[in-house]
Amino acid sequence: MQSLLEEIDFELQSAKDRGSVATYIPELACIDPQKMGIAVATVDGQLFSVGDDTEPFSIQSISKVFTLTRALGMLGEKLWERVGREPSGSAFNSIVQLEHEKGIPRNPFVNAGAIVVSDVLLKGHRPEETIAEILQFVRSLSDDSVEVNYAVAHSEAAFGFRNAALANYMRAFCNLEHPVEQTLEVYFHQCALSMSCRQLATAGLYLANGGVIPGHNTSVISHERARRINAIMLTCGHYDGSGDFAFRVGLPGKSGVAGGILAIVPGKASIAVWSPGLNEIGNSLLGTLALERIVKQTGWSVFGE
Amino acid sequence: MQSLLEEIDFELQSAKDRGSVATYIPELACIDPQKMGIAVATVDGQLFSVGDDTEPFSIQSISKVFTLTRALGMLGEKLWERVGREPSGSAFNSIVQLEHEKGIPRNPFVNAGAIVVSDVLLKGHRPEETIAEILQFVRSLSDDSVEVNYAVAHSEAAFGFRNAALANYMRAFCNLEHPVEQTLEVYFHQCALSMSCRQLATAGLYLANGGVIPGHNTSVISHERARRINAIMLTCGHYDGSGDFAFRVGLPGKSGVAGGILAIVPGKASIAVWSPGLNEIGNSLLGTLALERIVKQTGWSVFGE
Amino acid sequence: MQSLLEEIDFELQSAKDRGSVATYIPELACIDPQKMGIAVATVDGQLFSVGDDTEPFSIQSISKVFTLTRALGMLGEKLWERVGREPSGSAFNSIVQLEHEKGIPRNPFVNAGAIVVSDVLLKGHRPEETIAEILQFVRSLSDDSVEVNYAVAHSEAAFGFRNAALANYMRAFCNLEHPVEQTLEVYFHQCALSMSCRQLATAGLYLANGGVIPGHNTSVISHERARRINAIMLTCGHYDGSGDFAFRVGLPGKSGVAGGILAIVPGKASIAVWSPGLNEIGNSLLGTLALERIVKQTGWSVFGE
Amino acid sequence: MQSLLEEIDFELQSAKDRGSVATYIPELACIDPQKMGIAVATVDGQLFSVGDDTEPFSIQSISKVFTLTRALGMLGEKLWERVGREPSGSAFNSIVQLEHEKGIPRNPFVNAGAIVVSDVLLKGHRPEETIAEILQFVRSLSDDSVEVNYAVAHSEAAFGFRNAALANYMRAFCNLEHPVEQTLEVYFHQCALSMSCRQLATAGLYLANGGVIPGHNTSVISHERARRINAIMLTCGHYDGSGDFAFRVGLPGKSGVAGGILAIVPGKASIAVWSPGLNEIGNSLLGTLALERIVKQTGWSVFGE
Repeated sequence: MQSLLEEIDFELQSAKDRGSVATYIPELACIDPQKMGIAVATVDGQLFSVGDDTEPFSIQSISKVFTLTRALGMLGEKLWERVGREPSGSAFNSIVQLEHEKGIPRNPFVNAGAIVVSDVLLKGHRPEETIAEILQFVRSLSDDSVEVNYAVAHSEAAFGFRNAALANYMRAFCNLEHPVEQTLEVYFHQCALSMSCRQLATAGLYLANGGVIPGHNTSVISHERARRINAIMLTCGHYDGSGDFAFRVGLPGKSGVAGGILAIVPGKASIAVWSPGLNEIGNSLLGTLALERIVKQTGWSVFGE
Repeated sequence: MQSLLEEIDFELQSAKDRGSVATYIPELACIDPQKMGIAVATVDGQLFSVGDDTEPFSIQSISKVFTLTRALGMLGEKLWERVGREPSGSAFNSIVQLEHEKGIPRNPFVNAGAIVVSDVLLKGHRPEETIAEILQFVRSLSDDSVEVNYAVAHSEAAFGFRNAALANYMRAFCNLEHPVEQTLEVYFHQCALSMSCRQLATAGLYLANGGVIPGHNTSVISHERARRINAIMLTCGHYDGSGDFAFRVGLPGKSGVAGGILAIVPGKASIAVWSPGLNEIGNSLLGTLALERIVKQTGWSVFGE
Repeated sequence: MQSLLEEIDFELQSAKDRGSVATYIPELACIDPQKMGIAVATVDGQLFSVGDDTEPFSIQSISKVFTLTRALGMLGEKLWERVGREPSGSAFNSIVQLEHEKGIPRNPFVNAGAIVVSDVLLKGHRPEETIAEILQFVRSLSDDSVEVNYAVAHSEAAFGFRNAALANYMRAFCNLEHPVEQTLEVYFHQCALSMSCRQLATAGLYLANGGVIPGHNTSVISHERARRINAIMLTCGHYDGSGDFAFRVGLPGKSGVAGGILAIVPGKASIAVWSPGLNEIGNSLLGTLALERIVKQTGWSVFGE
Repeated sequence: MQSLLEEIDFELQSAKDRGSVATYIPELACIDPQKMGIAVATVDGQLFSVGDDTEPFSIQSISKVFTLTRALGMLGEKLWERVGREPSGSAFNSIVQLEHEKGIPRNPFVNAGAIVVSDVLLKGHRPEETIAEILQFVRSLSDDSVEVNYAVAHSEAAFGFRNAALANYMRAFCNLEHPVEQTLEVYFHQCALSMSCRQLATAGLYLANGGVIPGHNTSVISHERARRINAIMLTCGHYDGSGDFAFRVGLPGKSGVAGGILAIVPGKASIAVWSPGLNEIGNSLLGTLALERIVKQTGWSVFGE
């Protein structure tokens, strides 16, 4: 595995088309597009990695996997009354769908859905408490050096008019229970978690291991829910490129706009890749290629060897 | 396995809510809603089944899996210039998406996509030749008693105005190469294949076995393409209920409006279920429940045991 | 004319179907649905009226005519770079159109368009200054007893999540120049003007008289712009019922959700009607009927006697 | 008037931007873009004209005014159960709206609406009979040299896949009563009427004159229906440019894709202009400018002098 990762890293170093770095906030616009990291954590306790594997990056929407895990723990299946679980067929920040479906987001991985999830997590707390809890949860999955990047959170809020539009719109349909500003404060901060590929691959292991952190005895979430989160990652984890990701990579995955992807190999491993350049749908260009290569060599696709 | 199937069959016999039988053509409207069949074919050559397992039913859209297999064999990856592979976020016969995406259907399993696939298969032939080839192909996957139900094909054509609208619309964008009537003739006949659960489960085995029919040496399609067809089945196989099917069942699957579902367990088995009543999205209500039960007991979900 | 109005008033008193009063804020929900007022002001200085003709009601969206007049005066034809002038084909508060047209509202009479107009009027001022200016302007068209109903404005703000969604959404496309809260403050207050039918009919006279208040020498707006505002009222003044209003009444008109309608007879008169019950599109049911009757008797339709 | 027309004609001869000629069928693509004709027929019997005023051109969608007149005569207000009268907010050949509104077109001037009108006219006849009747009707409004251009009708049919899609789609919702091919045959032929500006201006006079052909005693249609057709022309006659046409010209009008426009001045006159180059919405660029000039000089806008 280590030599496979090194081979892929070497090969992609010289890739000419690296996609376009997200520029909507300065903190992301200034990331070096040459950055590239890969980490593979296995359920039997090994951790392989290459490149910028220890450098923290903004995991952005990948955090939606962790907040969904928490929200399911808190609210259980009642969550699905407030958010769907169907692929959206439109962009991550589309508001059209919300109008057609009366304020119910298509799934927890589009922005509107993750705002609802943030609203669920806020229940009975102040935003800073909820943010601290989320951070504590992710640290418990990975290690204590995971941080919230407050500059990123601040910028997201300053430029977050579309998200504010989504939140107000859902509030109009009574699908938010807290003041819009509080829900958005949680949302913008959970998007601003900074993690390295090694931390992120480690954090995802519970999803590869039936909801249990390998090596610990504590269950994060039930077997069934871990499976179901994987299912939603596969059908909805890459916005309107989810079908293409399933077609090419064949693993449950969740991408972030800063170029990270978390992919789960059920029963086997958790993979984190990072390359800041995005394809036209908004998913990491080289990150997807790296995953495609790994799956091809390992036969890890859930759709058959 | 056999006892599990019998248990599920017994349990579902007494189900009160069986959904609604499709009524848009008389041939489907008159099917007895109490019919229920299940068959599981394994890659190591076993075949388990219960209920109305040998009674032929109209597989309808399930045939889109077989025609996609053929079209990929003929046209290869160029097929993806004419049809996408993203879940649609809308009904199986929606035309809205076609307007937004200039005549390119979202995926090969919505009606518009399957009409494009029919157009590909028609290449250089008369419709009746292409229909005969499709039938011959499905017989080679199953057995020689598979038939086209011409009464169904005729009714589909007689009431097929929305499909005619889709076909004309794509023709306006030059995404059909043959006269609309010829392409539709192929389309309506491939939807009218009659198969029993035992035949259908057997026919799907190549997708569970890396593209090779177990026990034969001949490859139907490459390993990679078999995987990819499974991926498209998982993300797009149940129309706007694909996310829910992945969430609950966790297998690549394709449903038909007459109440059949074909589900693939990569590396292990092919499952066919049939119960004519449909849920509100248009997928078999009890069929989905049966698959959910089978997967729960066997741990066959692709998303983890 | 006076006897015609009395006849219509008498007849409509006994109407059984009076539509449904708007209930989204308590100040509107509590209005007596039996209220009914009509006033006709002619360019030669006469004023006819019946019923609850002197009772102030919330003119709501009718004020968009007056703010558009002001914004055209301030910004001239450059206004049309920020808002269109086409009928919308959708509800007054739809956000779908904004996504398709990148933050440019279809016309100044849908909510999004009137929010842009409020943003124009805010230019270089504090919200309370702009609100005072708008009030002063409407008083100059009518009389000094016109007031802002602050309870209505406050309720609009408290329940104005969809408008906040629209405003944030346009801000994301840089089509608002001021902080969202300030622009909305202006918007919610201009919607909360209280006027009687007599005041409203008088205020609209400049649009019937080529931009000049009859009896005064001062021009409110140029001949050409008065004509153009009338044109937009006719094509867009009744939301997705504008075509029906043109078909049945045949006059430029603007409706409000509290049941008022202002209609203009170019060269002749300005008409205000008020009946709180709305039809399914959101326009006054009896108000429209009253106008239909007036036009039928007078031959005032712009489309021929 | 004659000198005004000559002045406008002279001025527009040298216009640099003449728009783009429609190219979807060869018969239209080959029209000389320098062609320009204007004719003004008054209700008191005068006829002024300039330029290519006697040269027949394909009136295309302008014929929808005449077929609507006939359909209202046949079916009366029941027509409105099968077609709406609201502006569409989308392109002339959009199918999206039909899906949202279950097969009921927005108005009789979008293609789908005119196809319904053709279906109404077909009632109990063979297509060629209905086509002959339409031709006879238009001749009775104008003169006997009006012809159907069969080459145009044939080309429309050969390239008419989008219209075939619309027709099939409405048939699926049972909003066509005849076989799709027959209804389309009527539709394609009524679009292919050839008329000169002088003929067209003359033919429109009944709409300026309360439904009565000036100088004759026979009424084509009632006063009220003439008014209402004018209303629909104003709100829907220029597709998604209807608001702009009302704003700039201020007259009921109907445009055709070959560059003709018929405009009605209620109580006064009927105007026909022809210049083949279209603006980006699909309406005659110079034709609109010519009408704008005529209205500016005459004060004929329905929205005030």
